[in-house]
Amino acid sequence: MIIVLKPEATEAQINAIREEAGARGLIVREIQGEASRIIGLLGDTSLMLMETVSRYECVERVMKLSEPYKLASRKFHPGDTVVEFPGGQRIGGGGLAVIAGPCSVESEEQMLSVARDVKRSGAAFLRGGAFKPRSSPYAFQGLGLDGLELLKIAREKTGLPIVTEIMSQEYCEEFARDVDLIQIGARNMQNFPLLREVGDLGKPVLLKRGASCTIDELLQAADYILMGGKSSVILCERGIRTFETATRNTLDISAVPVLKKKSHLPVVVDPSHGTGHWDLVFPMAMAAVAAGADGLMIEVHNNPERALCDGPQSITPFLFDGMMRRLGKLHDAIKEETGE
Amino acid sequence: MIIVLKPEATEAQINAIREEAGARGLIVREIQGEASRIIGLLGDTSLMLMETVSRYECVERVMKLSEPYKLASRKFHPGDTVVEFPGGQRIGGGGLAVIAGPCSVESEEQMLSVARDVKRSGAAFLRGGAFKPRSSPYAFQGLGLDGLELLKIAREKTGLPIVTEIMSQEYCEEFARDVDLIQIGARNMQNFPLLREVGDLGKPVLLKRGASCTIDELLQAADYILMGGKSSVILCERGIRTFETATRNTLDISAVPVLKKKSHLPVVVDPSHGTGHWDLVFPMAMAAVAAGADGLMIEVHNNPERALCDGPQSITPFLFDGMMRRLGKLHDAIKEETGE
Amino acid sequence: MIIVLKPEATEAQINAIREEAGARGLIVREIQGEASRIIGLLGDTSLMLMETVSRYECVERVMKLSEPYKLASRKFHPGDTVVEFPGGQRIGGGGLAVIAGPCSVESEEQMLSVARDVKRSGAAFLRGGAFKPRSSPYAFQGLGLDGLELLKIAREKTGLPIVTEIMSQEYCEEFARDVDLIQIGARNMQNFPLLREVGDLGKPVLLKRGASCTIDELLQAADYILMGGKSSVILCERGIRTFETATRNTLDISAVPVLKKKSHLPVVVDPSHGTGHWDLVFPMAMAAVAAGADGLMIEVHNNPERALCDGPQSITPFLFDGMMRRLGKLHDAIKEETGE
Amino acid sequence: MIIVLKPEATEAQINAIREEAGARGLIVREIQGEASRIIGLLGDTSLMLMETVSRYECVERVMKLSEPYKLASRKFHPGDTVVEFPGGQRIGGGGLAVIAGPCSVESEEQMLSVARDVKRSGAAFLRGGAFKPRSSPYAFQGLGLDGLELLKIAREKTGLPIVTEIMSQEYCEEFARDVDLIQIGARNMQNFPLLREVGDLGKPVLLKRGASCTIDELLQAADYILMGGKSSVILCERGIRTFETATRNTLDISAVPVLKKKSHLPVVVDPSHGTGHWDLVFPMAMAAVAAGADGLMIEVHNNPERALCDGPQSITPFLFDGMMRRLGKLHDAIKEETGE
Repeated sequence: MIIVLKPEATEAQINAIREEAGARGLIVREIQGEASRIIGLLGDTSLMLMETVSRYECVERVMKLSEPYKLASRKFHPGDTVVEFPGGQRIGGGGLAVIAGPCSVESEEQMLSVARDVKRSGAAFLRGGAFKPRSSPYAFQGLGLDGLELLKIAREKTGLPIVTEIMSQEYCEEFARDVDLIQIGARNMQNFPLLREVGDLGKPVLLKRGASCTIDELLQAADYILMGGKSSVILCERGIRTFETATRNTLDISAVPVLKKKSHLPVVVDPSHGTGHWDLVFPMAMAAVAAGADGLMIEVHNNPERALCDGPQSITPFLFDGMMRRLGKLHDAIKEETGE
Repeated sequence: MIIVLKPEATEAQINAIREEAGARGLIVREIQGEASRIIGLLGDTSLMLMETVSRYECVERVMKLSEPYKLASRKFHPGDTVVEFPGGQRIGGGGLAVIAGPCSVESEEQMLSVARDVKRSGAAFLRGGAFKPRSSPYAFQGLGLDGLELLKIAREKTGLPIVTEIMSQEYCEEFARDVDLIQIGARNMQNFPLLREVGDLGKPVLLKRGASCTIDELLQAADYILMGGKSSVILCERGIRTFETATRNTLDISAVPVLKKKSHLPVVVDPSHGTGHWDLVFPMAMAAVAAGADGLMIEVHNNPERALCDGPQSITPFLFDGMMRRLGKLHDAIKEETGE
Repeated sequence: MIIVLKPEATEAQINAIREEAGARGLIVREIQGEASRIIGLLGDTSLMLMETVSRYECVERVMKLSEPYKLASRKFHPGDTVVEFPGGQRIGGGGLAVIAGPCSVESEEQMLSVARDVKRSGAAFLRGGAFKPRSSPYAFQGLGLDGLELLKIAREKTGLPIVTEIMSQEYCEEFARDVDLIQIGARNMQNFPLLREVGDLGKPVLLKRGASCTIDELLQAADYILMGGKSSVILCERGIRTFETATRNTLDISAVPVLKKKSHLPVVVDPSHGTGHWDLVFPMAMAAVAAGADGLMIEVHNNPERALCDGPQSITPFLFDGMMRRLGKLHDAIKEETGE
Repeated sequence: MIIVLKPEATEAQINAIREEAGARGLIVREIQGEASRIIGLLGDTSLMLMETVSRYECVERVMKLSEPYKLASRKFHPGDTVVEFPGGQRIGGGGLAVIAGPCSVESEEQMLSVARDVKRSGAAFLRGGAFKPRSSPYAFQGLGLDGLELLKIAREKTGLPIVTEIMSQEYCEEFARDVDLIQIGARNMQNFPLLREVGDLGKPVLLKRGASCTIDELLQAADYILMGGKSSVILCERGIRTFETATRNTLDISAVPVLKKKSHLPVVVDPSHGTGHWDLVFPMAMAAVAAGADGLMIEVHNNPERALCDGPQSITPFLFDGMMRRLGKLHDAIKEETGE
């Protein structure tokens, strides 16, 4: 249930609602919009009638959301959410944020080399996997906490905020302390205890769509994080599983405008995992930007042929540089056009 | 088997190859490239050894194609195919060809109104279904040959070449005579007798990808048409069937760069059927162009709410006009960038 | 709209309904049940109000079907349909009808050999493809009408009715004359002109589910055939396209009970195409029978390794014989149990 | 790498291999077959040449597995694995083990009532969800550890071993102590840290196939658990995600014979989640048994209409009783037939 408050609503008046809702076992979430203040009541809202709520003097309007997701819904938060980072980076709000780096952290030399290259080309964030979810237990599983240390060194040298995947609740403390943007991978999109715990860390979360999850399920997973009330969420389309074998996954570009319509959260696209082929990364990055994506996540490796993971879908820093130049022009052309 | 001939090859020398291939039951197809001349031998090529062929004096190089498709392969025809129409319209070769019009032909007034509107906005072709493949036998099935007459009237008044779907071999004569670009719909992509017969008509064919067909199967279907040696083929991505229900189909934008890599044929994208929602048509059209599509196929209806078919995915002429302006700027920005 | 007539309804009374419906452009289909007589009105039934129909004296009850299919619906025809053949064979009604034979007709010797073998093991029908829909134009396309002649010889020698696929309207005459059970292949399930024409031939039709078609679409395709009012339809599940690659298709066994619930038509399962592996044919045939299938369609080849088509999924006559014995016992155990 | 030892191999001889493998960073897993003893070397086996291993005197044969899974492979363990429980229950080895109970634990009364009913009808295990993975954070999430207590009470009163899902590593201790068969749900099939940790608990694990995971990925996930060397694994097919909407998932019955061919592990089928409709549970249970499943997992609720979770797919104890009787007869008929 969404409650739009009158501009003149006082704290005391709102507290009365909070108390009644609390007494009925409902969770209360608030949001301060530009012009109005909105409260969301979550839980079994059949326990609190809309008529009851309407009678509070400070209430302007009450609505029920028919969507299975609430906090991620644009109805709950009509304006676009922009996630801002301490270093001034932003995801959402009209810019194009590029996250780049190798699939997995392999060595200090590799990380520093790639980090400097992608920074020079205009990337705003550095990615690199320390903990790697691999289908096979016999494949390289990542450097773990040692990898996290290498990412921190690269951040220190370049100033780029770091993005890396959390696979287990046991490392929440380290991630909350050390990682700028915590990634939930596609295989963990419905690992609900992890979502809840990450939602309490107070750090921005990049939530990747599961390979066989619908858009509605992605938004419900976002709600699991947002319920904590502390972390912001950035959605990431990275390809869905279909019968087609020419690509590793089928990158669902239409998820971008659908998500922008249904939700206020920023949307990022990962054309590297989405296609699995380095020579498809550029055209699909272009497509994502043209469709309205707020950012891109791109695998860049200084020596793709020797990468310990996902070499075939990684591009070199040289190719990345050319891509960034062309993506920038495309983005400018689109923005100029819309007068933004 | 692909045979690259020496520039100085004479007709007599080539005839000798033709005869030997014919004697072994193989089909011979030739293509004149800019710098070289290529012959393809189709059929059970184990009956003619590569060594045998190499010994002909006029032969520069022989190769076997491991792909299941041959005539549609870029290995067989390295340059891009450009399909040209008598009125000077072209699909392929760097331009952006837009095919627009209603899902189905409903009346003379409707066709003329839409045709004039889309022409004014820059569409190069007029689409409209006279024969409609509908899942339900109780749904509107199209006006049939009467619809074809209305399309001809609209062509006469506007000069736009007409694109319409053939559903059955029984109307091949009428389509060969009256239609400028014959469409094979997604449901008929593997209707092989129809493909063969249309391949003999000598008219360009727009071949839509089946909703559960792979890219390789699409190219094999193109080979069925190209084997006739008379018709050119334009490929059309229009969405594949997946578990996602937020969109009617999942428009596989990655099919564009994959097809451009594997094949020399032009690629057109249909964001109307691909998404099923009018408000997704524009962002997905932008994505298709950014990914390198040679053209678009867009459903435009003067009164979408009263359309006899697919109203929810049709846009108005007013929206189409705005879209064309923005697509044109996007296409210019991309082309300028690549120096084309 | 479904009209249940009173038992005492006279022809004259019913004619009055027929006339009014005809005058409003509706199609009238009738069915004689055991206890009651039912009329279906097809088309835009909003043109004829339920109240209007109810007022006819001979009408007991009127209902609207919310399903997109009508004639195939169990609501329209509550009892099971049993398709009977001139030789006494039956599909539906509690028995287990087995259709067996090679994927494609290759020679007289092959057909006779396989036909005699499968007959001896208890098959009731002989299958064999004369016209073969192949993804590649370079693959064996079948013997065509010559293949049909070989099937006729095999029928003459064994007495087995023949089942073979029609790919094009141009051979309707020959199929109507020579084929006992006309197969519509998966790729043609939505070739609507073919469905309509086959619906006029007055021969039983085996309609295979398209690899990406839903159960509701299959039943709508059945309606296209049944609208002709002359041909009966047997539905065939043969696997759907999914992301799994361990099998050629994913055989949707749950389609059997779903179809039996939604429709009165007999349901046959093809575990050969459904799995693509000869060693999965037996367990999946068992599963189909246990789930309630009325019949099976199984590829049997006297020399699978030399088969011109689909060898890997064909079983030998020896294996088929053992399978038939075990399927019979399974079927008996199930039927005994239900007291049928 | 799989090493088959000579029957006369001594511990000292085998230790030498263990040491060399350990020195190269490989993991050694052993298995005692009926006639032979087998060692598996896991890890980067390129570091230990097959020729080197062959030269050990106690080695009879060495082979490399091309499959991405090793410990779950039938090549590694040719005989069927049978999982035995302290109370004498078995899964695998020719019997039919039925796991039954409600989707989620709701109250002591409910659990005792259902437990007694399903025991009387012949179920060997009691299921019930204490921790529920729900797509929506606003849906009932299970009673947690309180639910586990209720399961223990039901076990005490009926003697049925209990099966329940673990969602997070934080409860490993409680599950290892209290649960007889630990379930990994479909959404956690690729939650690798959880798989690893559960593999160390020394309790049998029921591993459900992810809705979009291939059979090969399921077997690799089993390897994650089996690598611990302490826990046995039972595989569970519960439906995959496809385009079909008539069923909640598409139950892939062909996974049963495919898994039995590729792996030595027992295979159980869940027709409740696999179909999502109570009236499809029985026919699909029959199909699973006919296809060779070692067991079934079935949702039974004493009041499906008031179930807090998955009511539509739950059957009543009365229906369950009839189903068990018929499944038993089917299983007998199949086993008698094969002489088992």
